[in-house]
Amino acid sequence: MRIGVVDTTFSRVDMARHAIEAIKEAVPGAEIIRYTVPGIKDIPVAALKLLEDEGCDGVITLGWVGGSLTDKLSYVVASMSLQLVQLRTKKHVIDVTVHEDEAESPAELREIAADRARKHALNLVALLEGGGEALRRFAGKGLRQGRIHEGPI
Amino acid sequence: MRIGVVDTTFSRVDMARHAIEAIKEAVPGAEIIRYTVPGIKDIPVAALKLLEDEGCDGVITLGWVGGSLTDKLSYVVASMSLQLVQLRTKKHVIDVTVHEDEAESPAELREIAADRARKHALNLVALLEGGGEALRRFAGKGLRQGRIHEGPI
Amino acid sequence: MRIGVVDTTFSRVDMARHAIEAIKEAVPGAEIIRYTVPGIKDIPVAALKLLEDEGCDGVITLGWVGGSLTDKLSYVVASMSLQLVQLRTKKHVIDVTVHEDEAESPAELREIAADRARKHALNLVALLEGGGEALRRFAGKGLRQGRIHEGPI
Amino acid sequence: MRIGVVDTTFSRVDMARHAIEAIKEAVPGAEIIRYTVPGIKDIPVAALKLLEDEGCDGVITLGWVGGSLTDKLSYVVASMSLQLVQLRTKKHVIDVTVHEDEAESPAELREIAADRARKHALNLVALLEGGGEALRRFAGKGLRQGRIHEGPI
Amino acid sequence: MRIGVVDTTFSRVDMARHAIEAIKEAVPGAEIIRYTVPGIKDIPVAALKLLEDEGCDGVITLGWVGGSLTDKLSYVVASMSLQLVQLRTKKHVIDVTVHEDEAESPAELREIAADRARKHALNLVALLEGGGEALRRFAGKGLRQGRIHEGPI
Repeated sequence: MRIGVVDTTFSRVDMARHAIEAIKEAVPGAEIIRYTVPGIKDIPVAALKLLEDEGCDGVITLGWVGGSLTDKLSYVVASMSLQLVQLRTKKHVIDVTVHEDEAESPAELREIAADRARKHALNLVALLEGGGEALRRFAGKGLRQGRIHEGPI
Repeated sequence: MRIGVVDTTFSRVDMARHAIEAIKEAVPGAEIIRYTVPGIKDIPVAALKLLEDEGCDGVITLGWVGGSLTDKLSYVVASMSLQLVQLRTKKHVIDVTVHEDEAESPAELREIAADRARKHALNLVALLEGGGEALRRFAGKGLRQGRIHEGPI
Repeated sequence: MRIGVVDTTFSRVDMARHAIEAIKEAVPGAEIIRYTVPGIKDIPVAALKLLEDEGCDGVITLGWVGGSLTDKLSYVVASMSLQLVQLRTKKHVIDVTVHEDEAESPAELREIAADRARKHALNLVALLEGGGEALRRFAGKGLRQGRIHEGPI
Repeated sequence: MRIGVVDTTFSRVDMARHAIEAIKEAVPGAEIIRYTVPGIKDIPVAALKLLEDEGCDGVITLGWVGGSLTDKLSYVVASMSLQLVQLRTKKHVIDVTVHEDEAESPAELREIAADRARKHALNLVALLEGGGEALRRFAGKGLRQGRIHEGPI
Repeated sequence: MRIGVVDTTFSRVDMARHAIEAIKEAVPGAEIIRYTVPGIKDIPVAALKLLEDEGCDGVITLGWVGGSLTDKLSYVVASMSLQLVQLRTKKHVIDVTVHEDEAESPAELREIAADRARKHALNLVALLEGGGEALRRFAGKGLRQGRIHEGPI
């Protein structure tokens, strides 16, 4: 299994470290290729390179989104582009983002970032190992990344 | 008839169960292929795989959208990508979503989710069986999924 | 002349009836192919099928948009997809929508819907018959569909 | 030099007249092909036709945008589609729009429309004649179309 | 190394000058091709030309965004189109923008513009020289362009 990890220098947390640790624990033999870019708008082309040129089976991207309207709009742009990458390569790209407006303190942001990166790294591993059936038993279970699970209703 | 169903672990209701039940009741012999992903942004590539690689004739996707601005923006991204999937495959993908801000209680959300999943599953069956004429008699009738029909004016 | 008409069961007015009447009055020999879908997000792939598979020269789509933010976002998605259909087929698709927030009563909405469907059906006929010169004399005239014309300033 | 001009019947000012006058003054021998459509969402496919089928070297589009949220969203859709036209043809399309919310009186809107159409027509001519170097001396100069230049800071 | 620089006449600061200086200091032998356009919506096709027709290895674009909602929407459109350019060419385009609403005085805007242009020019150089590993040591460090670095948390 060959997994790409794209992260940014804009992020205030080294989310890639958490993602890579989770992957290594789950699949010790996994090959990981990491690509660091300045900000979220630089992520999609990096993900594309990892998938098409480096032979990655899937990619996890780790974006950090500021609190302004401009940042939100940049998020839309980057995320839409990651959709295009997925449709072009027909491979999963788990598009993880932490938004500065979703927490009240840096400490909380740091916890969200670590938890989200880890859980989504494991989601990617599950999809790569088990395809569309791997997460079946959690369907509709209200799972959350970066937060505690909300559970089903 | 071969129908794809994509759902998420983020959803707080097992919407796929309702959709699959409705399909089975309407077309007992239908083949159903289910693909579970973490969240809405992971849905489009799964739908594409079901249509192109698994030979599905149509797909119903079951998304759950949180109440924040970020969630709404992610909805736009996922929905736009599902449009691209449809134009590429020239097949219908019924893009069902339940939004946390459209109800006042978990119980109401659960009812919306079940009703919407069921009704839209039947819409997909109708389109696959009867094409553009199947729903003709309901045109302009103000039908609603997840709510009671509003009716024509 | 072969014209496609796409409408929805979500709409509270049978807009296709008005559009088809207008086309028939203007071009009695026109062939009309109608395709009814559940909601606006199902329109683009139907329009594409009419243009590519059914040989339509142009299409008019008749969408109905609810009053919530989610509805507005779905409008963006559907409309953007109709742009892709047009660029792919290099044919006009007149993307008609009625928005629930643009009137104060159901009666007013009904009038808007009928007027807009009729006028835009005639716009499509004009473009198909006369190309880019057909509407030249109305350029900059502040024409409105669903409302009375505003006129030039 | 062959220039396409796309305008609308929705516009309340005959912006094409101003654009064409400016082009004719600057390049008396320029060929101009005009294409009039109902509204902004009909512009992109017309621009594409002018570029691909009519052999235009560049296009100027003249849109008029109402003051509602729906109008703004339609602006995004039309503008994004014009981006796709440019990337597909690798030719410049100057996407001019006048927004009803940017002035306080019809007279002011009329002045904005005329000035913007003229100045951007000359921008297109400059790009077609001189490529990426033609506007070099104005880089960072805070030029405005429809308003007086703001100048550098 | 061949680097494209796209800037605008709309900008109130000659950001290209700062970017080019930074590139020249970092890589004295770099070839730089500059393309000046009117506004941000004209940037993407220029970037595409530099990458596909002029053989640039990467591009930095320098946009200036006004303070109105329309300006923000134009930003989304231009930025999304720059994503398409990157995915099509599989090359980095560093999409730099300065927004008039992010500062309280022209002087502050000027400083933001200069700093952001310089830092991102160096980011582009780093990516072109060192690929996805060049910025590895700054991953998660909370770097900012146009502002002082926020640092990790």
